[in-house]
Amino acid sequence: MRTSIATVSLSGTLTEKLAAAARAGFDGVEIFENDLIGSPLSPEEIGERAADLGLTIDLFQPMRDIEAVPADEFARNLRRAEHKFRLMRRLGADTVLVCSSVSPYAVDDDDLAAEQLRRLADLAQEAGVRVAYEALAWGRHVSTYEHAWRIVEAADHPALGVCLDSFHILARGSDVTGIESIPGDKIFFLQLADAPQMALDVLQWSRHHRCFPGQGDLDVAGLVRAAVRAGYDGPLSLEVFNDVFRQADAGRTAVDARRSLTLLHESAGLTAPPAPVVPTGFAFVEIATADTARIAPLLTALGFSRTARHAGKPVDLWEQGEARILLNTDTGSHRPEPSLTAVGLESPDPAGASARAESLLAPVLPRRRAPGDAPLDAVAAPDGTEFFFCVTGRPAPSEGEATDSSGFAGSPVRAGWTGDFAPAPHTPAPIGITRVDHVALTQPWHHFDEATLFHRGVLGLRPHASVDLADPYGLLRSRAASNEDGTVRIALGVGASPTEDPARGGRPQHVALVTDDLVTTVRRALAAGARMLPVPPNYYDDLAAHHEFAPGELETYRDLGILYDRDEKGEFRHCYTVTTGRVFFELVERSGGYDGYGARNAPVRLAAQHALAE
Amino acid sequence: MRTSIATVSLSGTLTEKLAAAARAGFDGVEIFENDLIGSPLSPEEIGERAADLGLTIDLFQPMRDIEAVPADEFARNLRRAEHKFRLMRRLGADTVLVCSSVSPYAVDDDDLAAEQLRRLADLAQEAGVRVAYEALAWGRHVSTYEHAWRIVEAADHPALGVCLDSFHILARGSDVTGIESIPGDKIFFLQLADAPQMALDVLQWSRHHRCFPGQGDLDVAGLVRAAVRAGYDGPLSLEVFNDVFRQADAGRTAVDARRSLTLLHESAGLTAPPAPVVPTGFAFVEIATADTARIAPLLTALGFSRTARHAGKPVDLWEQGEARILLNTDTGSHRPEPSLTAVGLESPDPAGASARAESLLAPVLPRRRAPGDAPLDAVAAPDGTEFFFCVTGRPAPSEGEATDSSGFAGSPVRAGWTGDFAPAPHTPAPIGITRVDHVALTQPWHHFDEATLFHRGVLGLRPHASVDLADPYGLLRSRAASNEDGTVRIALGVGASPTEDPARGGRPQHVALVTDDLVTTVRRALAAGARMLPVPPNYYDDLAAHHEFAPGELETYRDLGILYDRDEKGEFRHCYTVTTGRVFFELVERSGGYDGYGARNAPVRLAAQHALAE
Repeated sequence: MRTSIATVSLSGTLTEKLAAAARAGFDGVEIFENDLIGSPLSPEEIGERAADLGLTIDLFQPMRDIEAVPADEFARNLRRAEHKFRLMRRLGADTVLVCSSVSPYAVDDDDLAAEQLRRLADLAQEAGVRVAYEALAWGRHVSTYEHAWRIVEAADHPALGVCLDSFHILARGSDVTGIESIPGDKIFFLQLADAPQMALDVLQWSRHHRCFPGQGDLDVAGLVRAAVRAGYDGPLSLEVFNDVFRQADAGRTAVDARRSLTLLHESAGLTAPPAPVVPTGFAFVEIATADTARIAPLLTALGFSRTARHAGKPVDLWEQGEARILLNTDTGSHRPEPSLTAVGLESPDPAGASARAESLLAPVLPRRRAPGDAPLDAVAAPDGTEFFFCVTGRPAPSEGEATDSSGFAGSPVRAGWTGDFAPAPHTPAPIGITRVDHVALTQPWHHFDEATLFHRGVLGLRPHASVDLADPYGLLRSRAASNEDGTVRIALGVGASPTEDPARGGRPQHVALVTDDLVTTVRRALAAGARMLPVPPNYYDDLAAHHEFAPGELETYRDLGILYDRDEKGEFRHCYTVTTGRVFFELVERSGGYDGYGARNAPVRLAAQHALAE
Repeated sequence: MRTSIATVSLSGTLTEKLAAAARAGFDGVEIFENDLIGSPLSPEEIGERAADLGLTIDLFQPMRDIEAVPADEFARNLRRAEHKFRLMRRLGADTVLVCSSVSPYAVDDDDLAAEQLRRLADLAQEAGVRVAYEALAWGRHVSTYEHAWRIVEAADHPALGVCLDSFHILARGSDVTGIESIPGDKIFFLQLADAPQMALDVLQWSRHHRCFPGQGDLDVAGLVRAAVRAGYDGPLSLEVFNDVFRQADAGRTAVDARRSLTLLHESAGLTAPPAPVVPTGFAFVEIATADTARIAPLLTALGFSRTARHAGKPVDLWEQGEARILLNTDTGSHRPEPSLTAVGLESPDPAGASARAESLLAPVLPRRRAPGDAPLDAVAAPDGTEFFFCVTGRPAPSEGEATDSSGFAGSPVRAGWTGDFAPAPHTPAPIGITRVDHVALTQPWHHFDEATLFHRGVLGLRPHASVDLADPYGLLRSRAASNEDGTVRIALGVGASPTEDPARGGRPQHVALVTDDLVTTVRRALAAGARMLPVPPNYYDDLAAHHEFAPGELETYRDLGILYDRDEKGEFRHCYTVTTGRVFFELVERSGGYDGYGARNAPVRLAAQHALAE
């Protein structure tokens, strides 16, 4: 179906908004009246600008407080409407949104409402436009779509239909099946917005917390299906405003919006993009740093060995078990400190994953190929992290370009990306790390919902519930996404505001590594010179108050700085290295099906990190 | 009464929190358990640190999910409590907060709750501590203070009492008169927080939106009065957390907190600071600028004349009617652009106003005196603006140091601050401006509530309702405060977040000037070369749709860039100069009792300002 977006969803001037909508691939726009009023362009010029950009003007909005009012008030309203219909002709818009009245003058009289809307529709018809009547969830007398439709049906005018807004309908918990009994040609417009489930006054909820379909908790797809079954064939149009989008870059918001509509088409069973390709594991984690002087000794102490070097680029492969870390020293001048820049995901179908990403407007990265390199499909996530779709494993017999003379740490010869690496002599000294458990990526404040939608839609991961973590200098919001068996886990974190002060330690990213025996692994790491994060002794007093431990167990944890958590399913032991640049490592031991991330321990970990940073 | 603050109310490490509370003058603290757990100091060291700072530890908090649970669960809870009571002894805290259970294991059985709390109190008594039981508003079975008190009364144990939390009580709309029937010695603790009235889930409301008493809508003073009548004589303790305080500087938050408690003492009829002194008008507005090349011609075009120069400082007085602007070129290097730095308020009692400000922890500024200068009392507002308490007028006969040979623009000889200025020759060319209507001050994001409390408590102004204004790049929140007759009006504005990009125009401040005939005044200003803000023509089309005007009236407004608003009481006409540095001027004509600020026109004004800035 055609796609549209309301200009109120984007920040900036009207011309900026139009340009952003066009660049993101929308077919049309709703023009929000205040955007027009604030523009130095005349209505004709705005219409031409939209046409030049290939955008239709699908709706002019809103007109308010029109119907079910005393006669003198209604006469003033008709006068106002005449002005606006004239404006619409100049603009080239043929449908106007009329919201159900919130006026104190409005009366609870459906006959009067129908009669006045009919007269409004007469006027509209003369002017060559039509009226889409929408029930605001907080309308004074009309607040449900069923009620709005009853009035439109009673008015029975060809220039009068309903506008359905998913927020207003779903926020009230209305049943959408009733939509199917509205004739499709009387549904003049469909406005779509999602929202997180909140027990909040619906007006405040609407004004501050709308989000794009798929970013909240409302069943927008179900509503779209109902409208399509009713015969609606107009545009799917986004009308979403919140405190973030009002400030965010319009171009970026428009891409996020357009991506959400593609995913909505998919979940509503309309057109579908290429199918998602769910990753099956971590192929590698890449850390960029101009200088390996601090990170290389830490990797060594953690039991990693430098097993290979890229044939054409200053990139080293470090390995231990199935955990692989690339150290990239080709960083340019802007990343002198170690930072986590890329993640390789094991993909059953890299080309398919890439095609899906591209169809969802993920920036597909120029392939980093040297002559003879294996092609690597990669996309950039909203936070700038590069995700590569990889195959790590034995080559098929026909792909014999890799040799089996490699000295890779006990691992088989590999095809795909590892074929670009030349083995380096090394002496393995593993300490028990077997693979990557998760990577934790810090998100820019504005882009948390965008990132969640990206990880779900583009990477095919399943988002888990969002949790708040108390940091000494603010709440952190954290949300993990994973594949089904937990072999790919990505934790997205964001501060409560953009005032994050890098001088206070900023928000480092981290890589969590799996061991089956944390105590032994930590002892070996310490013996090899790893610097682990010191945990305040008071933490262990608290742990003793909450749990009983085997004799000596708690003392061991205290000595080694190990944190502990337990849930209904199992236990979680974990500890942290100190931070190097923007990166630190976590060592984790999961047992008995524990599926979390030790959120209970986050405050003490964050406090310890702050203490160390000062 | 003694004052206390929970460490969870302040950001940073525990030692930072203790230092901030002591510096702001609190008598004691509540120690939040997670702050202790995250601290590298032992409980004994924390106790010593507090004692060294002169702080008592009034409460240790919280213990959760203790009561009305199955026997095995309760045994574990007692074990946990024993640990915590031991910890409290080491810390030197004698009261612990126990919150009503939210555990899924808790049962709805008051007898069991009382029995288990009695056993907990036995254990507490042995350890030399006592238990304050508090009903969380979202407690599973116990969610009102009356219910908590019934259980405590039934348990009947000397080491068991209630803790009353104003948020939990007032958020549920409970009647506080029942507090008076609780014996005062059974009210072990009083935690105070305010909050804006919101229709939001009470847990989210509590977690993200608490504020200090006087900053929200709850009747905290009424609750304090009830507790005092009951015989409570413990500390008034603040337990306030929200997304802002978690990130704000602890020292600043502590001062804001302590000020709110002083005002709470006043409004609850306990001890009172010096009485408020309400200002009666604007004495002057000061603009600092290194270079007057742009601002001086604008003032001239607006009909101001340079009437005098300060005897000892590079400060010029510009006057028109009762509007006075000081141009201060002694700005140092950090303020090259014109910015609004100080406001002189006409005060019936400058010394009293200053004493009040000092008692409310407002930073009293070093008096800017040259030999022979009149003393000027001044304080700094949270945004850094300096407020001077002034007397402008005829000298009393005994204060004859000012001469009457001045050439001040048609004005009488003045005493007080104007006595420091030497008249300068000038030719008045007024354009109809009579006085200052209001000043609009941009607030730092974090400090809006603090600023509102400051303007109310310290300056004696009455805050009006807060409104949201749509800017092309984000919502603005605006709140005016005024004296009773509207001769002093200050509009505080803040962006929706701290991401304000100065490159996009930032948030300028402005001075609104009164005229009785805006059309004539603007014509004269334009004729004298003033650059006025251009208003998009679409605005006037919209105005024509909403209102009927006399023939030619709308065209005049369009030609002159005049904006128009109307309410039940009267009309408002206003227009703006372009922005110079961080400052612009507004010209306003109020008629018929219009009491607003043209909020309806703010979006178009903001859009026009952005358009000009680009």
